[in-house]
Amino acid sequence: MAYVLWSRHLKFDPSAPQWFDRDRFILSAGHGSMLLYSLLHLAGYDLGIEDLKQFRQLHSRTPGHPENTHTPGVEMATGPLGQGVAHSVGFAIAEQYLSAKYPGLVDHYTYALCSDGDLMEGVASEAGSLAGHLSLGKLIWLYDDNGITIDGTTALSFTEDVGKRFEAFGWHVQTIDGMDLSAVDAAIVAAKADPRPSLICAKTVIGFGSPKLAGTNKAHSNPFGADELAATKAALGLPNEPFYDPEEAHLAFAPAVQRGQEAHQKWASAVAGTDLETLLSGIELDWSNVLPVISDKIATRKSSETIIQALAPVLPGLIGGSADLAESNLTHQKGFGDFSPSLPGGKNINFGVREHAMAAAVNGITLHGGTRGYGASFLIFSDYARPALRLSALMECPSIFVFTHDSVGVGEDGPTHEPVEQLTSLRAIPNFNLFRPCDGNETAAGWKVALRSTKTPTLLALSRQALPAVSPATPGDHPAEKGAYVLSEAEDAVITLIGTGSEVQHCLAAQKTLAEDGIVARVVSMPSWFLFDQQTDDYQESVLGEVLTISIEAGSTLAWPRYADVCLGIDRFGLSAPGDLVMKELGMTPEAIVEAAKALVAGV
Amino acid sequence: MAYVLWSRHLKFDPSAPQWFDRDRFILSAGHGSMLLYSLLHLAGYDLGIEDLKQFRQLHSRTPGHPENTHTPGVEMATGPLGQGVAHSVGFAIAEQYLSAKYPGLVDHYTYALCSDGDLMEGVASEAGSLAGHLSLGKLIWLYDDNGITIDGTTALSFTEDVGKRFEAFGWHVQTIDGMDLSAVDAAIVAAKADPRPSLICAKTVIGFGSPKLAGTNKAHSNPFGADELAATKAALGLPNEPFYDPEEAHLAFAPAVQRGQEAHQKWASAVAGTDLETLLSGIELDWSNVLPVISDKIATRKSSETIIQALAPVLPGLIGGSADLAESNLTHQKGFGDFSPSLPGGKNINFGVREHAMAAAVNGITLHGGTRGYGASFLIFSDYARPALRLSALMECPSIFVFTHDSVGVGEDGPTHEPVEQLTSLRAIPNFNLFRPCDGNETAAGWKVALRSTKTPTLLALSRQALPAVSPATPGDHPAEKGAYVLSEAEDAVITLIGTGSEVQHCLAAQKTLAEDGIVARVVSMPSWFLFDQQTDDYQESVLGEVLTISIEAGSTLAWPRYADVCLGIDRFGLSAPGDLVMKELGMTPEAIVEAAKALVAGV
Repeated sequence: MAYVLWSRHLKFDPSAPQWFDRDRFILSAGHGSMLLYSLLHLAGYDLGIEDLKQFRQLHSRTPGHPENTHTPGVEMATGPLGQGVAHSVGFAIAEQYLSAKYPGLVDHYTYALCSDGDLMEGVASEAGSLAGHLSLGKLIWLYDDNGITIDGTTALSFTEDVGKRFEAFGWHVQTIDGMDLSAVDAAIVAAKADPRPSLICAKTVIGFGSPKLAGTNKAHSNPFGADELAATKAALGLPNEPFYDPEEAHLAFAPAVQRGQEAHQKWASAVAGTDLETLLSGIELDWSNVLPVISDKIATRKSSETIIQALAPVLPGLIGGSADLAESNLTHQKGFGDFSPSLPGGKNINFGVREHAMAAAVNGITLHGGTRGYGASFLIFSDYARPALRLSALMECPSIFVFTHDSVGVGEDGPTHEPVEQLTSLRAIPNFNLFRPCDGNETAAGWKVALRSTKTPTLLALSRQALPAVSPATPGDHPAEKGAYVLSEAEDAVITLIGTGSEVQHCLAAQKTLAEDGIVARVVSMPSWFLFDQQTDDYQESVLGEVLTISIEAGSTLAWPRYADVCLGIDRFGLSAPGDLVMKELGMTPEAIVEAAKALVAGV
Repeated sequence: MAYVLWSRHLKFDPSAPQWFDRDRFILSAGHGSMLLYSLLHLAGYDLGIEDLKQFRQLHSRTPGHPENTHTPGVEMATGPLGQGVAHSVGFAIAEQYLSAKYPGLVDHYTYALCSDGDLMEGVASEAGSLAGHLSLGKLIWLYDDNGITIDGTTALSFTEDVGKRFEAFGWHVQTIDGMDLSAVDAAIVAAKADPRPSLICAKTVIGFGSPKLAGTNKAHSNPFGADELAATKAALGLPNEPFYDPEEAHLAFAPAVQRGQEAHQKWASAVAGTDLETLLSGIELDWSNVLPVISDKIATRKSSETIIQALAPVLPGLIGGSADLAESNLTHQKGFGDFSPSLPGGKNINFGVREHAMAAAVNGITLHGGTRGYGASFLIFSDYARPALRLSALMECPSIFVFTHDSVGVGEDGPTHEPVEQLTSLRAIPNFNLFRPCDGNETAAGWKVALRSTKTPTLLALSRQALPAVSPATPGDHPAEKGAYVLSEAEDAVITLIGTGSEVQHCLAAQKTLAEDGIVARVVSMPSWFLFDQQTDDYQESVLGEVLTISIEAGSTLAWPRYADVCLGIDRFGLSAPGDLVMKELGMTPEAIVEAAKALVAGV
């Protein structure tokens, strides 16, 4: 399948792996990474035979699973099953959107090669249902249906009718003999022609050519051993030579390379001077003009809504939406239409109740380029999306996640809907910027940081409930961009109060009360640990101060000893009741801070 | 639907909500909690009209979403979409297993009432595919197909053919008018008779009776307002009286109650003196006899395999398996068969590459009673299962998760397969016991803790690579059961080294090297923060000591300042290379500890 696709169909230019209008190829079955490396090598990408010999070795460009940060021509990191196909939906959404906006300049297919394991994962079903709903006609999945999983045959655990499932999703489905090159070719031709997304179920033989192991799970990941390797190569008519790399194999891809490079040249001429060229040049916004000053006492999700409306007209590539909570997340770009087959230039995507596929699609949209994806849900449901959130960080993909209802302030919906451990667990992901603003202007700073980021995803954790405006009214250049800052300094302070998000207001209230009792406190707002940790030691020390510290955040205290001597938080599940009552019941009040501060100062 | 099911079909005894052979009813669409509370009230459960008046109020028994820990007759907590249906598969597996082992004594149906949102979630697809594969004939889902989601009509995001999808999964599918009581009744009768799991797609009208809001998303969660409420009650022929609770509504359920109570009495007579009665009585094992002493240098996953073989014959209710990694997780109960339609008494379940549905099913198996579920995968893929892991903790459901390959020691598979932040993120979940043993005997202690737990799920984080036996050879009564303990005490120590899992051996090696340089260190093994935090202050202080502390763990250091002054760990993604090289490259060595200890002692 891969040979036919790459030699006869795929549009690519190995000398310009990032050429914008290339077809995208995603090896969703990332454990077959050597297939992809071999294709890249044979097709003339900058990946030599010496790279291939370093397979799975330290600091090589051929790691065990493909990583877009390591190898030219690798579109995304794959390996966690289901992710490649789910991300491919985002790539295809981006293509459909951009081809509507820039007709003639954007016109390419998105291919994913996937395995049984990919299609067993729930995220693949979510993605398949979404792609069918959106009629992503230029999305094609090639299903390597070899009937084998790690544990044995698929009869052990996977006996559904996959093709029928995808027909139910509204896909064009073909079943073919995947070992028959002309059948593969004909299927790809038909898939490209069909207006629906296409699934090609290709019956294949795992370990093809191996006399003893072909068609068994022993060919899945175990080395063949020298004897069986020799026998397999003999059966395939190949010399028994390690890393055999004949010129004729390279030549088989030469026509495809030539076609691709001609297409690239033609495209380069066509795009010159167009709006698309401007979009791709990535001109920096003048944030001071774009971001609104927000002085009202409103929920940070509501502030985010205002900010999104300001950004919508100036960022044509910004597209995204919510997992069926648009009216709660407030992420709709008003007047910019819903993305659909009849309005492919719509900027708002209705992802449905599919948080995981949404996050994957948002990454795909962002990785595609020209577009910047965002997705929204309640913070609690970040748990559903977690594998794709992690992957965004690993891939250095600057996706934006707008997760609202960020605490037990959610209230009546109760503990199943109230995040408690999510802030901590998200901060633990490397290269992931969790940003929890305390008011509208910090929210603007968060959006600015998110949009300027080139290698780090950002998650904005926003409140359901209204929060007073307490931070500097300088949205274009806000101290929150440093992750933490002194919001209220005080000379001769004996204590520092650190808060995030909805608890910052309580720090300020406690500061006042404590002052009446002669205890001088300073207040730090800390929306982002990730950004704060990148500041100089001097800056960090200047913010934290040299006095005792108390932190307060409506979430797990597990990691707060990193910054605080006393940590106020919520180390239990929440409660169903009006939000302010739950907050009180669980100690998220100025009074709790005052009490803790007095005890700390008294040395109790 | 619910009325027909509860009044004509459901087998239950409101005076004994936990009666073992009751039918299980799960409101997967948990946001309709008042439906369930009303049914429980009308059917005679201990849930009075005053409870209903306290809907979504602090400390009431009628929280916003159903919680099994709050309300009699509620089988599980629901609300996060897809979870109810996915858990129902576990309930049905437990029933099928037990009915094979105890024929005539276990014979009940599992019903789930679900919504569009449930069926959009990927976990529902995983669960549907698994249930179809296993032919769970006594599992019946009622799909409230009202065509409305929060954001509007399902046309916005959900246009697939749901019935066809489930046919592809191997289900018996019916489509009916859900407002027609006799059609509902006939469909349930047919579903019960069919040997496959059944989906009843019932076309319904949301907000039925409301003149203005019926059939719109405004009837989804917003209050109707006084006028529309009055108009709706008028249209339904009801008096406009709040919490109208006529006796005749209760009487409608009386025959069902009588049938259920008669069945309960009959069952109680039949079960007396049987093996099932013994199983349900929960007799405590003599752990000192059951658990093996493990003195070999083997991987903790390998130790776990040995322990599982010891437990298999003495725990007839212990069933579970792996998400297509049985040969890596080593969780197979050898000689006890694979659970399948042809061997419903098999103890090993092939979950397929469906980590999320597996975790949900494991919870369902455990909640069912008589059975104790466990599930296995690589630790990295706990991310896929996270919403169900959280729910196990929230429901106080003592599921067991055996997650192996618990660090960058995974090696060649690279960063997509190497957990880094997972240990921290799992510890942050309230009431969740992450247990990371350092050797075989600690692994036995972990299994003992897991099995004895009645209200807390346990996740055993086990190594891929071999670890030396260093902890006390007392598996029946091991100090690791306290979460942390002094593994190697030293008089006049100036430093405490804390390790978990594969890094404990490095602490011991460093202790030796430091001693040669005249620096006396003591070593603490800390497999479980959860258990350690429950110990007395005195015990905790005796373990941590009064000297400076260094922690080492092959994972995020984010939360380690809680216990340590210097935290060695991995705050970046891993690498693809042989596992020992990755460990070295990322500083997980005795040398790194020695260096840190010297710097700390020198006051650097």
